[in-house]
Amino acid sequence: MTYCLGMRLRDGLVMVSDSRTNAGIDHISTFRKMHVWEEPGDRTILLATAGNLAISQSVVHFINEGLVLPGHDEPSTMKTVRNLFEAAQLIGEAIRTVHKIDGSRLEAKDGSGFNISCLLGGQIKGEAPRLFLIYSAGNFIEATDDTPYFQIGETKYGKPILDRALSHDLALEQAVKLALISMDSTLRSNLSVGLPLDLVLYRTDALTLALHRKIDETDPYFSTIRQQWSSSLKNAFAALSDPVWS
Amino acid sequence: MTYCLGMRLRDGLVMVSDSRTNAGIDHISTFRKMHVWEEPGDRTILLATAGNLAISQSVVHFINEGLVLPGHDEPSTMKTVRNLFEAAQLIGEAIRTVHKIDGSRLEAKDGSGFNISCLLGGQIKGEAPRLFLIYSAGNFIEATDDTPYFQIGETKYGKPILDRALSHDLALEQAVKLALISMDSTLRSNLSVGLPLDLVLYRTDALTLALHRKIDETDPYFSTIRQQWSSSLKNAFAALSDPVWS
Repeated sequence: MTYCLGMRLRDGLVMVSDSRTNAGIDHISTFRKMHVWEEPGDRTILLATAGNLAISQSVVHFINEGLVLPGHDEPSTMKTVRNLFEAAQLIGEAIRTVHKIDGSRLEAKDGSGFNISCLLGGQIKGEAPRLFLIYSAGNFIEATDDTPYFQIGETKYGKPILDRALSHDLALEQAVKLALISMDSTLRSNLSVGLPLDLVLYRTDALTLALHRKIDETDPYFSTIRQQWSSSLKNAFAALSDPVWS
Repeated sequence: MTYCLGMRLRDGLVMVSDSRTNAGIDHISTFRKMHVWEEPGDRTILLATAGNLAISQSVVHFINEGLVLPGHDEPSTMKTVRNLFEAAQLIGEAIRTVHKIDGSRLEAKDGSGFNISCLLGGQIKGEAPRLFLIYSAGNFIEATDDTPYFQIGETKYGKPILDRALSHDLALEQAVKLALISMDSTLRSNLSVGLPLDLVLYRTDALTLALHRKIDETDPYFSTIRQQWSSSLKNAFAALSDPVWS
């Protein structure tokens, strides 16, 4: 399993992914699920993947090799796409390419299914930062001010705090805290989501990442806010009014 | 969908269920999912169900009609079972009875599957209070001091706070608060879980319910702690240390 979260906010983007993959509980490994393509001053493109690791690695391979998009004559790559919509098309095309190769066996009765989903975020010079959620059929939706975040993978444990605290105008530093708290709830409740985390922070119009940090057990800031959050929740719970009728 | 939660604590039992059922998002109804069998001074038996409503209503029908358990000559009902283990067997037998009738069509390729799960809690004179989780195959597991709670239905949104705050020695009033907070997180994140709630509180050796309360939008206590919890979470989040590296 996996948990990845992307936020598209007034001041930029925050994305975080875990790094655990498992094929059965006795075959657990660490693979980074965050991919970055960057041409400083021109474009920063971020991709986080959930689902079958063999599919996502193949998708990244075909993205890097280049694929011909509808209406184009030449293959596109993350270096040549003209906007983030084309980047989402490129990922969708890569997913369909992998599906042509592996889909029928994976979707057979004894297969594990053709499972992949992606978060695509970033900015290409000339447009605002954008965030897309791409499905296993290769189609996609885009985040708006009303729905400023997308999750993929094991999404439920970390969703309640997002629904309470996230809005489009949240400052990026606060969004980083919120992303880590959402991840913490997931790490605690699902063993198949694991450290280290990949955290990226992108400020609007910077056209280069402000931060790309690997966060493991020894990260002092993550440890601090995990402890603070845990004790705050316990205190908040203890401070609730007692039932009047029990 | 449904969310039901049962806790087996040092001082007794707390169970809560929502009451929304849906067959498609344009066919939403209210059905209570908490069933109580009580002979004051002798037994209090509580059943909460999740899954296909047609199955759970049929299960309750067969429980009330009585079924012959392995090793018995006469049909058993909730009035005659000698202990909670037999009550769990009775529910399992009722589930298998319904499966014989409806299972093959529900499990056919175009069917919705044979989905039911149950929480059984209560006490019968002569033994301690017990809590069981019963699966759609009719088999079951029992809660212990180490794992003092079970959930069925839409379990994930409301689980993180349980994992942080619930222990076997939590006072019953505190457990009621915790159950309502866990339910609140679920209500906010999944539209198919809805008010009113059925809340029951049972004190060890009372052999009659201490509380059976229907909680809807107008319940002043539930409204109060929802607001308190929401503002506490926002304050706790705001009080977290800001990232040192962003």
